[in-house]
Amino acid sequence: MVRRESPTPIITLLTDFGTSDGYVGVVKGVIAGIAPEARVIDLSHEVPPQDINSAAFLLDESFRYFPEGTIHLVVVDPGVGSSRFGLALFSKGHFFVGPDNGVFTSVLDNADVHRLDEPEYWLEKVSDTFHGRDVFAPVAARLAKGYSLGVFGPEYENPVRLILPEPYEVDGEWRGKVVYIDRFGNLVTNFSQELIESITAEGCYVVVGGPGPKWPLCHAYSDVSVGENCALVGGFGRLELSVNQGNAAERFGIKVGETLSLRTCSRVD
Amino acid sequence: MVRRESPTPIITLLTDFGTSDGYVGVVKGVIAGIAPEARVIDLSHEVPPQDINSAAFLLDESFRYFPEGTIHLVVVDPGVGSSRFGLALFSKGHFFVGPDNGVFTSVLDNADVHRLDEPEYWLEKVSDTFHGRDVFAPVAARLAKGYSLGVFGPEYENPVRLILPEPYEVDGEWRGKVVYIDRFGNLVTNFSQELIESITAEGCYVVVGGPGPKWPLCHAYSDVSVGENCALVGGFGRLELSVNQGNAAERFGIKVGETLSLRTCSRVD
Amino acid sequence: MVRRESPTPIITLLTDFGTSDGYVGVVKGVIAGIAPEARVIDLSHEVPPQDINSAAFLLDESFRYFPEGTIHLVVVDPGVGSSRFGLALFSKGHFFVGPDNGVFTSVLDNADVHRLDEPEYWLEKVSDTFHGRDVFAPVAARLAKGYSLGVFGPEYENPVRLILPEPYEVDGEWRGKVVYIDRFGNLVTNFSQELIESITAEGCYVVVGGPGPKWPLCHAYSDVSVGENCALVGGFGRLELSVNQGNAAERFGIKVGETLSLRTCSRVD
Repeated sequence: MVRRESPTPIITLLTDFGTSDGYVGVVKGVIAGIAPEARVIDLSHEVPPQDINSAAFLLDESFRYFPEGTIHLVVVDPGVGSSRFGLALFSKGHFFVGPDNGVFTSVLDNADVHRLDEPEYWLEKVSDTFHGRDVFAPVAARLAKGYSLGVFGPEYENPVRLILPEPYEVDGEWRGKVVYIDRFGNLVTNFSQELIESITAEGCYVVVGGPGPKWPLCHAYSDVSVGENCALVGGFGRLELSVNQGNAAERFGIKVGETLSLRTCSRVD
Repeated sequence: MVRRESPTPIITLLTDFGTSDGYVGVVKGVIAGIAPEARVIDLSHEVPPQDINSAAFLLDESFRYFPEGTIHLVVVDPGVGSSRFGLALFSKGHFFVGPDNGVFTSVLDNADVHRLDEPEYWLEKVSDTFHGRDVFAPVAARLAKGYSLGVFGPEYENPVRLILPEPYEVDGEWRGKVVYIDRFGNLVTNFSQELIESITAEGCYVVVGGPGPKWPLCHAYSDVSVGENCALVGGFGRLELSVNQGNAAERFGIKVGETLSLRTCSRVD
Repeated sequence: MVRRESPTPIITLLTDFGTSDGYVGVVKGVIAGIAPEARVIDLSHEVPPQDINSAAFLLDESFRYFPEGTIHLVVVDPGVGSSRFGLALFSKGHFFVGPDNGVFTSVLDNADVHRLDEPEYWLEKVSDTFHGRDVFAPVAARLAKGYSLGVFGPEYENPVRLILPEPYEVDGEWRGKVVYIDRFGNLVTNFSQELIESITAEGCYVVVGGPGPKWPLCHAYSDVSVGENCALVGGFGRLELSVNQGNAAERFGIKVGETLSLRTCSRVD
């Protein structure tokens, strides 16, 4: 029965609501009415509409920079109004609230997961289209007030999990995928910093697609001239393919899901 | 002489400033200088430039989700620098501050409306182009500090009102309009949930324009297959015409102001 | 050894991060972990990528609307990961933290400038690509907690300065430049309100380029009809060239850097 106790509750918001229609504002209004002491911090409201994979990626890369006890409210919810469940869970020192559709995949191991079953903790009138406001925000606000996870509903054994592709070694090279493209057009891959550090050496480079563009490994954008390719561990802690002061995704027409190969080089031990 | 007394004052912001030029930031800076205890929540800064109708719609749909005593600052102000008045008013348990141009139409009935006449409560230097920063923000911040409405200026009898179209019945069907399009491309109509619940039954559908696309009534996006039309009461509490996981406005080229008909069906009582 | 003492610390953020990728959120998470009492206010995250000039302009126009003691965190940082220094400085009653690349040009005179040299005040692990999160946010948070400037590193004598063009008089007219374009398409010039007030009189007008469009001076957008040109001192306290309820930049295809002439008129003394 985990409950939060910090004197300064923080609730983060990660949604596909955009910021133009006031949806985010009313979610904050509902939270302020229940837990006026909670501080609300926007992670992003520009997740591509109903893109559960991008939401799961952004959540996983962001939550650990917040203090323990933070409550992460995720509303990317194409199944709203259907029979999908809502969840509240505790994992890795943080709380998470949102729909059971895979957005929490990366934090489900060893998590204490509860189904949202108790309407007394929701808004009095629940719509079929906006559970972010009517269900998830009131639950997050009550977690901020110190309610225990267990009050919101029973434990839940089988939350939805996404299949997240992992890099693998074949034919003397590592193969991976582009998993996210940021606003600068940097191509974020599924190669973690740890993997890169364990397998790379001077002279390594990445190739996208079959005979696609080459990206030599570097440490900082400024290691290469303006307009040149550079593959480096970026802000997400993943290998990113970048063009110094340029937009790699636009320049080469590369999209999420594209396969890439890291050509292994002689190890320098 | 209404004054607010809550210990946690909230000020919401609804503007057409966009978020790129720092205009919103300086408004918050002015508020923080006068009322550091106030919490500021963004409703939207993406109202189409000078679109008073959209601002009035978003305000009306959003303000009631905030705690009573909240101060709603609205700056969509094509007449700034002209002789239009500024207003501060109290209605339905909430405060509102902004220009007298119709943005407050939906809350004017039985409101306590005051004209902003007292420059001592504004910034020392008032520009002709940015009353949001120079006039309205200081007034909102002082409301947050507990100043009475009456100190800002005299009561005002004739604030500007927009004409908001209402649905009507003719020839055995109900006619209404598209009044807002959200970022998902959902077409928000002027049919309220109450009206829909009083007139619909199974088999009803909406037609846009003359022989335009048909939208069967449904309860949740997931009632229909991906890519299919569905008319449901959405997050604004209004009938919305949607395409499940698609963009209805783009797909059918429908704009705000378009007429639609709800074909009445046999009542199921 | 300047240190801040206000009971309500404010940190503003001015970046080119955009708001879609969660970068801003994790910066706020880092701040909340170190200085939970600090209030964070966004100035803008839509600075064009790596556009130091626009960042310097927006900072200069915005910071003075915040209370003294505010900490302004600026992260527009094309040189991240190179040998460029980080800075923390005190000037005009405010604190500033960010890269040494010229973004602070307008506040460097008489400033107390320190180089960021002490990794014990940064995150434990510092990336080569995201000093906003790993270096600048922790320093700003510690300034909010009252740490003295001097603890972060030694005084620094030669911070980078941008060359900011100033208007000049020639051949009986004043020449200046477009230095910023806001979201409404208003063309913000480098003519300050003070300069305009000292040199203009009725009948003055601005010409852009050689024989380009004419902009008569006015006081408010509403001084001219909808769709007409009007040159007025705008929200930034600079002369702006506007089209009433229109987009001047798009209509005339004018960009930042374009030269303009203020045709002087008979002085009215």
